[in-house]
Amino acid sequence: MNDLMSYLDTVSAETERALDKALPAETGMAERLFAAMRYSCFSGGKRLRPGLFAATLELFGRELADYSCFAAGLEMIHTYSLIHDDLPAMDDDDLRRGRPSCHKAYDEATAILAGDALLTHAFCQFCRVDAAAEAKLAAIDTVAYAAGIGGMVSGQMADMQGEEQNIPHTMERLEYIHRNKTGMLFEASVLSAAILCGATAEQQALLRDFCLQLGMAFQISDDIRDAVKEAAELGKAPGSDERNGKLTYVTLLGEAEARLRLQQAGDAAFALLEKVDFGNTARLAQFVSFCLERV
Amino acid sequence: MNDLMSYLDTVSAETERALDKALPAETGMAERLFAAMRYSCFSGGKRLRPGLFAATLELFGRELADYSCFAAGLEMIHTYSLIHDDLPAMDDDDLRRGRPSCHKAYDEATAILAGDALLTHAFCQFCRVDAAAEAKLAAIDTVAYAAGIGGMVSGQMADMQGEEQNIPHTMERLEYIHRNKTGMLFEASVLSAAILCGATAEQQALLRDFCLQLGMAFQISDDIRDAVKEAAELGKAPGSDERNGKLTYVTLLGEAEARLRLQQAGDAAFALLEKVDFGNTARLAQFVSFCLERV
Repeated sequence: MNDLMSYLDTVSAETERALDKALPAETGMAERLFAAMRYSCFSGGKRLRPGLFAATLELFGRELADYSCFAAGLEMIHTYSLIHDDLPAMDDDDLRRGRPSCHKAYDEATAILAGDALLTHAFCQFCRVDAAAEAKLAAIDTVAYAAGIGGMVSGQMADMQGEEQNIPHTMERLEYIHRNKTGMLFEASVLSAAILCGATAEQQALLRDFCLQLGMAFQISDDIRDAVKEAAELGKAPGSDERNGKLTYVTLLGEAEARLRLQQAGDAAFALLEKVDFGNTARLAQFVSFCLERV
Repeated sequence: MNDLMSYLDTVSAETERALDKALPAETGMAERLFAAMRYSCFSGGKRLRPGLFAATLELFGRELADYSCFAAGLEMIHTYSLIHDDLPAMDDDDLRRGRPSCHKAYDEATAILAGDALLTHAFCQFCRVDAAAEAKLAAIDTVAYAAGIGGMVSGQMADMQGEEQNIPHTMERLEYIHRNKTGMLFEASVLSAAILCGATAEQQALLRDFCLQLGMAFQISDDIRDAVKEAAELGKAPGSDERNGKLTYVTLLGEAEARLRLQQAGDAAFALLEKVDFGNTARLAQFVSFCLERV
């Protein structure tokens, strides 16, 4: 776990250099927009998506330094989703990573616009990476679909609809929400790197299967942590999901079964990495270990 | 003006076919999202951006039918901007084109997500048009910049900041807002078509100059119409901008001076089209005539 954390520190530094370059601190008539964009982009976070992107580049023998603006774009998309999710009309969260969320630090209109601008500007970053044009287009399409109707936005919609309308908790619903809301952008972070490196369709398919298991392991471990860990560590009261009737792996299956499923997903992810014969998977394996070890 | 209207009808039909194909009516767990996206995309509107895109294709001897998914993407971006602009935290408009705006027909969370999804899905459409890969990337970069920090979002931010903070009305501020909020996406609609058709840097520069004047003519004519036309025709009370202290060409300059500036912008736009020696500019000229004739 420490290995992954120090790797993510390196990835984070590289990604932040690219973010800093891509987000100039404008002092013109829209300065509030630029300030809010930077506020949310430089507020910590593990940079997991750039990390998965970088780990996949490593698998193909490439370096993040040569693709850092693509990683910055992925982080912009993740950051926009957090800003919009925190809005009063959505999850209504006043805090994000221990600081006021964007609409509290600025205001709602600015937060909506900062999210919109980060999402849009991400696509400028993708266009500007130095790679083969056809591969870039395929990578952009993959990310746009995963961040939009084919993933993140659909997942958030299903999550909101479920909570508002008291739709019964089922495994099918839980998996739809997490697969789309979180899993698809993880997958797109891996696949876009693979595509930029010229991965074959078979290589992409194997990595897609791996991401499905990794995403599940990540989400289950997140739910277990939330259910059992100390308030101080997470910044929210332990077991709050259960009290709020939130749909999680732990509230649906109980902690013991959730731990079993986590181990199964982790094992499946490792097994898929063993099938990879086109590069060193050590870095990607660290992400799986991270999920297993953090609970 | 009638010529342009019938042309826009044709463009609209073609664009709507592409929108219909791009926006499947999903019946899964995020069905509310898809319904809201379609509700806002199929609610009328002149389809000016697809129209400018198509008119530029025509200039280069190409047909919209071969690039209609790109036009659909431009319209998705325009539609998302209307949905988000109408939100309570922004302009707080309950009506759009005589129908409940998206957050009234659905709810705020759904409207935020429908806007996010339309913006994101637009980039899938751009990637999927049949054109040279390098040209597509340049066109996507141009649109993303114009729709984001280099245009639309910055313009909306400056507009909101100006109204909230009672920033003094100046011509510089008015031009910044309109150039960015509306003008840049007009320009990107023209330039993206030109780029997809392989336009040279000089041709692009000439079209960019044209768009600056066209955008100005469009905005001034919009402001004049709002100041003088009947409530029934516009759906809002005439002269409401003046009463609300809104910054417009008419409130800033008076109607006579605004009409003079409209004519000047129109003349300049026509003069720029005369310099075009690489195709038939009749269709683009109709957009200028439209601005001059509608007041």
